[in-house]
Amino acid sequence: MSDRDRNTVASPVSLTAEDGPGQPPVTPALQDLYRGFEKALLVPLWTEIGDLMPEHPRSRALPHRWEWRTLLDLAARSGELVPVGRGGERRAIALANPSLGGRPYATPTLWAAIQYLMPGEDAPEHRHTQNAFRFVVEGEGVWTVVERDPVPMRRGDFLPQAGLHWHAHHNAADQPMAWIDGLDIPFQYDVEAQFFDFGRDALSAEERTTPERSRAERLWGHPGLVPVSRLGRPAPGAGSPLLRYRWEDTDAALTDQLDLERAGHPGTVEPGHALVRYTDPATAADVLPTIRAQFHRIRPGAETAPRRETGSSVYQVFDGSGRVTVGDASWSVRRGDLFVVPSWAPLSVRSEASPSDSDSGALDLFQFSDAPVLTRLNLFRTHVEENA
Amino acid sequence: MSDRDRNTVASPVSLTAEDGPGQPPVTPALQDLYRGFEKALLVPLWTEIGDLMPEHPRSRALPHRWEWRTLLDLAARSGELVPVGRGGERRAIALANPSLGGRPYATPTLWAAIQYLMPGEDAPEHRHTQNAFRFVVEGEGVWTVVERDPVPMRRGDFLPQAGLHWHAHHNAADQPMAWIDGLDIPFQYDVEAQFFDFGRDALSAEERTTPERSRAERLWGHPGLVPVSRLGRPAPGAGSPLLRYRWEDTDAALTDQLDLERAGHPGTVEPGHALVRYTDPATAADVLPTIRAQFHRIRPGAETAPRRETGSSVYQVFDGSGRVTVGDASWSVRRGDLFVVPSWAPLSVRSEASPSDSDSGALDLFQFSDAPVLTRLNLFRTHVEENA
Amino acid sequence: MSDRDRNTVASPVSLTAEDGPGQPPVTPALQDLYRGFEKALLVPLWTEIGDLMPEHPRSRALPHRWEWRTLLDLAARSGELVPVGRGGERRAIALANPSLGGRPYATPTLWAAIQYLMPGEDAPEHRHTQNAFRFVVEGEGVWTVVERDPVPMRRGDFLPQAGLHWHAHHNAADQPMAWIDGLDIPFQYDVEAQFFDFGRDALSAEERTTPERSRAERLWGHPGLVPVSRLGRPAPGAGSPLLRYRWEDTDAALTDQLDLERAGHPGTVEPGHALVRYTDPATAADVLPTIRAQFHRIRPGAETAPRRETGSSVYQVFDGSGRVTVGDASWSVRRGDLFVVPSWAPLSVRSEASPSDSDSGALDLFQFSDAPVLTRLNLFRTHVEENA
Amino acid sequence: MSDRDRNTVASPVSLTAEDGPGQPPVTPALQDLYRGFEKALLVPLWTEIGDLMPEHPRSRALPHRWEWRTLLDLAARSGELVPVGRGGERRAIALANPSLGGRPYATPTLWAAIQYLMPGEDAPEHRHTQNAFRFVVEGEGVWTVVERDPVPMRRGDFLPQAGLHWHAHHNAADQPMAWIDGLDIPFQYDVEAQFFDFGRDALSAEERTTPERSRAERLWGHPGLVPVSRLGRPAPGAGSPLLRYRWEDTDAALTDQLDLERAGHPGTVEPGHALVRYTDPATAADVLPTIRAQFHRIRPGAETAPRRETGSSVYQVFDGSGRVTVGDASWSVRRGDLFVVPSWAPLSVRSEASPSDSDSGALDLFQFSDAPVLTRLNLFRTHVEENA
Repeated sequence: MSDRDRNTVASPVSLTAEDGPGQPPVTPALQDLYRGFEKALLVPLWTEIGDLMPEHPRSRALPHRWEWRTLLDLAARSGELVPVGRGGERRAIALANPSLGGRPYATPTLWAAIQYLMPGEDAPEHRHTQNAFRFVVEGEGVWTVVERDPVPMRRGDFLPQAGLHWHAHHNAADQPMAWIDGLDIPFQYDVEAQFFDFGRDALSAEERTTPERSRAERLWGHPGLVPVSRLGRPAPGAGSPLLRYRWEDTDAALTDQLDLERAGHPGTVEPGHALVRYTDPATAADVLPTIRAQFHRIRPGAETAPRRETGSSVYQVFDGSGRVTVGDASWSVRRGDLFVVPSWAPLSVRSEASPSDSDSGALDLFQFSDAPVLTRLNLFRTHVEENA
Repeated sequence: MSDRDRNTVASPVSLTAEDGPGQPPVTPALQDLYRGFEKALLVPLWTEIGDLMPEHPRSRALPHRWEWRTLLDLAARSGELVPVGRGGERRAIALANPSLGGRPYATPTLWAAIQYLMPGEDAPEHRHTQNAFRFVVEGEGVWTVVERDPVPMRRGDFLPQAGLHWHAHHNAADQPMAWIDGLDIPFQYDVEAQFFDFGRDALSAEERTTPERSRAERLWGHPGLVPVSRLGRPAPGAGSPLLRYRWEDTDAALTDQLDLERAGHPGTVEPGHALVRYTDPATAADVLPTIRAQFHRIRPGAETAPRRETGSSVYQVFDGSGRVTVGDASWSVRRGDLFVVPSWAPLSVRSEASPSDSDSGALDLFQFSDAPVLTRLNLFRTHVEENA
Repeated sequence: MSDRDRNTVASPVSLTAEDGPGQPPVTPALQDLYRGFEKALLVPLWTEIGDLMPEHPRSRALPHRWEWRTLLDLAARSGELVPVGRGGERRAIALANPSLGGRPYATPTLWAAIQYLMPGEDAPEHRHTQNAFRFVVEGEGVWTVVERDPVPMRRGDFLPQAGLHWHAHHNAADQPMAWIDGLDIPFQYDVEAQFFDFGRDALSAEERTTPERSRAERLWGHPGLVPVSRLGRPAPGAGSPLLRYRWEDTDAALTDQLDLERAGHPGTVEPGHALVRYTDPATAADVLPTIRAQFHRIRPGAETAPRRETGSSVYQVFDGSGRVTVGDASWSVRRGDLFVVPSWAPLSVRSEASPSDSDSGALDLFQFSDAPVLTRLNLFRTHVEENA
Repeated sequence: MSDRDRNTVASPVSLTAEDGPGQPPVTPALQDLYRGFEKALLVPLWTEIGDLMPEHPRSRALPHRWEWRTLLDLAARSGELVPVGRGGERRAIALANPSLGGRPYATPTLWAAIQYLMPGEDAPEHRHTQNAFRFVVEGEGVWTVVERDPVPMRRGDFLPQAGLHWHAHHNAADQPMAWIDGLDIPFQYDVEAQFFDFGRDALSAEERTTPERSRAERLWGHPGLVPVSRLGRPAPGAGSPLLRYRWEDTDAALTDQLDLERAGHPGTVEPGHALVRYTDPATAADVLPTIRAQFHRIRPGAETAPRRETGSSVYQVFDGSGRVTVGDASWSVRRGDLFVVPSWAPLSVRSEASPSDSDSGALDLFQFSDAPVLTRLNLFRTHVEENA
């Protein structure tokens, strides 16, 4: 059966109905048997198979959008009321998908939050197996200290932080700053592989001075060039040693793809749709073992073909405005808004600016997903529908 | 902090307590803020971090043992009451860990069941992305038809069946037969990557005749020798093309390890403890992309050192009798009994037979786990405690 | 240009001719320039390009066959005249391809020799980076001691021995024994990566007793099963830990492939042509880092399609008789005969027994080649011609 | 035996001497046997083993230096006398190591040449399996057209060009331009895997216009960012899709390493010695399947520890002046000079400028070697001697 068939032909039977096809008639003897199962901590497959083994992914998550304005207001209010310190660790407020039972999970595998730091504040040092990143939609002045290496954060920057790296944050500016954090908390909660350690409560003076470029960037931020002295450190597969992917580079890469398309050369993934992936310069693999991070630019007036993939994503609008359709849901989005795309839900995005010769007004989208998990386990699958 | 310290020093604070360290005082303003979070589908990190990001894995699952006799009785009763056919698909009855909310999950990632087929019965053909295997603790007469290749099943045989292989079962004997099935159903439920297709309702005459050796075994069952015509089929990483690992081979490998130990040579993983891993002969990786399968033999009177690992396991006693300790739980086990070991719970096993010069009466244990998931994602960690 | 075109269209110009296309007229000024080059240790490309960068491989080696009878007679005579001991190390006599300048090279990359040991003799222990193997066309009674593990050798056995393993030989029988050795001596001579160490002059008593099975075989000789205690030893990529591939297994694998073909199932590489590859059970890669070893069985009366590949091979007839065609050369071959196939020379083999329902009289061929070198460096290419 | 011992203790015996240890006395019978060998195209191991299997690499190549001034003068004279065109293909003049029999081989595996193009000249399009690169020590104005993508070349740029990419050169400037070419011609000559195809005789108008940045650079030249549309093209392992590594980036990476060292952080490979490796951004492996390319910067007054490695290298001085010692050879070198380091010969380099707080006057060295060949085949080994 082709993917196309699978998606348009409805499942012939509801397999979970107790009186459905393949279900035995419910007799007193059967009821007795089922009580025996319960007592012995057993559950039959034949009544559950439709839920457990669906014909295609039916996500427990819903598509949903959060408006940046709302997040930012609540984060600012938290800045007034909630101190940052040891124990609570971070002033981070997580997206809770409306159908995941109130858990702070944006999707079944991904955690996404707004983090907020007041002027002069520190978030104390710790480390954990959870893979993490920061992405900055506005502002500057904060830096993250990773393994005692201060890394500045500015609008458009992407800062990966692989598991078990010590890290803290410091806001050296006279303004509050907000950004988003993405982690694989739900996934690691499911597979139960988490470790967490508390670090130093205070940073050293050296770590509190503003750097222009981190040591990581000086070692690993040169295209195609690797520092021979650092090969094999950290262990290959542990995640990227490059701790900041600057906006200037991402912007230039996207501009180049659209320029190439305009000149008739390959570069975009579909007409009007530039796409770059953040990778680990030491392995060329995804930037984190469990998280894929990508950046999309959609030319003014362009629309992407509906595309499904196994696994889930969180998107944040970086710039421009657009119309997003995920299955039956559809929203207008603008700078800072976040939305989630559940597994196998078809996603299409339209850039709402008027078509023009320039890319000014293009819709810029940051995306992260659990694709490396699925890819490494032979479970990643995609399906692109042709546009009508 | 060393693993040892992590495990013996209690966490200094309970991070989840609302009035614990790092928690802001609950004022009306804060209550108002928390209502705002709820309305906006947000959850703060600072109140949840202890649960979400524990200092080490605290499994939702409990250690538990199921007695084979109970399973077999209930399965036999199901054989009388519940037909096998399209819709219900399989007469399989799954272990439901007592602390996983009644879900048919042996552990948070693994599904384990007893499957039962009456004489002459067929279980209809289907395929699914879930990786699966069969392991036979007693009996013979059934074969599994995988991709139209009939594969016999006998006591001690291990039959992997990677995702998206068509398969059906047929019992050609005049006795019922039971075996265990292991699948990654809970894991794929969490990452939402499942596809399922119904196949033919009936097998061909050729598929219903008793083979001595499957075609897969003829191609892939010769040690260190691969069929050049089949290289790359199926795609590397999709799972083992060898569909049956015969008991004779496993038994011989275990015997050899203990004999080598006795002669003073390396071979066992610790004194008196032989261990083999089932691998894909086309890649030498774990036999399935998400499931590791291993077989242990513990010499009469020997006891294994307590060992923790991230991720969970299900064990079945194949032969002998023993004493199993998992954290605070401890049970006597004998042929057919199953037990689960949650993530990071220390496991120790003692073979109860009297020590002797021969290995007769050794404790034989089949094990499967989610280790490939953790290994491929850089999350696998182990810790062995020294025996007192 | 397709491979087919490349092979049938002659090169339009001889690029090496001094007065050919692209060559400047030879004036006194040019002669002066060329003298300047010579003095400065320089060579122009334009006069050499046709030799250095041919349109397709033009091997320096010739196809050639050596008759086993001749080899064996000379080896036996050496047994009388030449002692085995420290310094000379081995009573091995190498094939010297007729067009490789008298060097003991069977092909530009491979060394192949008959080794001969008198009753009771020892060949002293040493080790070297050169990857090696033994293949036994007749006899038994010798074993190779590898890393103090005695490994018996019998007709049909293949014994790989990866670089830097200590090894010695001992003939415990009352008959002389001969076998072939294959090494990557010419290749390592070219890339200059050789190390060689002398070992003990005498074996211990334990190493001189006849084992039935080596320790390596006990650990690694079980299909699809690996000893967990030995994972990662030796380092992955260093070569197979399995030190003997028994004839029984190879024979059974070949028989199975032809039986499957007869029953209408995939298995052979082309009609009547079974082919197995020896692989490292710890990595599933080629058995040695630089040497591929394979075994062919060609059904009575069958003929293989002419096939070219980059890199060179040495074949030995293990059983049966046949007609071998390599480019313009053609020979009848029988048990023990060796022949070489240079890079990109088309090889076709015909089994000379009468076609029959059984495979009795099939032509059995052992092959080794440098394919892993080419494969790992992205240089391996094949081309099969359709049979007329 | 340690590497250190191996290198300082002379081989106890000369194994090649006919009357040496392990050699049988030369009797008439033995002479007769040897004549038999010769007639049968056989060569005994015992007389050859010392040459074939040395205790450590004894390179056939000699250390040697070529002065840039000499090369440039002869290249300029060739510019007057030798046209560039189809047949001769390139005005390239190769280094011929003094001990490699007049072959145009810089080392046993590497070809290195100065290429020279007069104003307005084209070098015609072709492609070949040989992996190649250009490195520019002075000048600009030429570009290389690779797969119809014009790539400019300027001082300090490194331009890899993996096997089977179509390429041509064009000099758009009003000055001649010279650069160096490096290829794996000798290696592919040895393994006989070469294919060569002629391409178009003339470039299109579009290919003759001066680009500022190539399409390859627009797709692949952004640090850590990959173009999703181009993943898997060309096939992973085939070589870098980035066709130019700009001097600005290399210079910045080296400066950063020395600055980090000065600030007390890791970065250099030894005190005063910065080292970057060119890598394929799609795989993070060496930039070409058979060639490693690196760039060294040695701080004024610094000296590197003598270092041996298996396999050979060619170096070109890019800037500064220094003293190079390779085994017993030693030369002063300055901009443009080339020298070769044979396998296992110890290399030490001293920067001759006066030590200072700045790196002005540092010795900059471009290096290429055959290390990927040895690394991928498990044959790479290094040894660093402690400085006295």
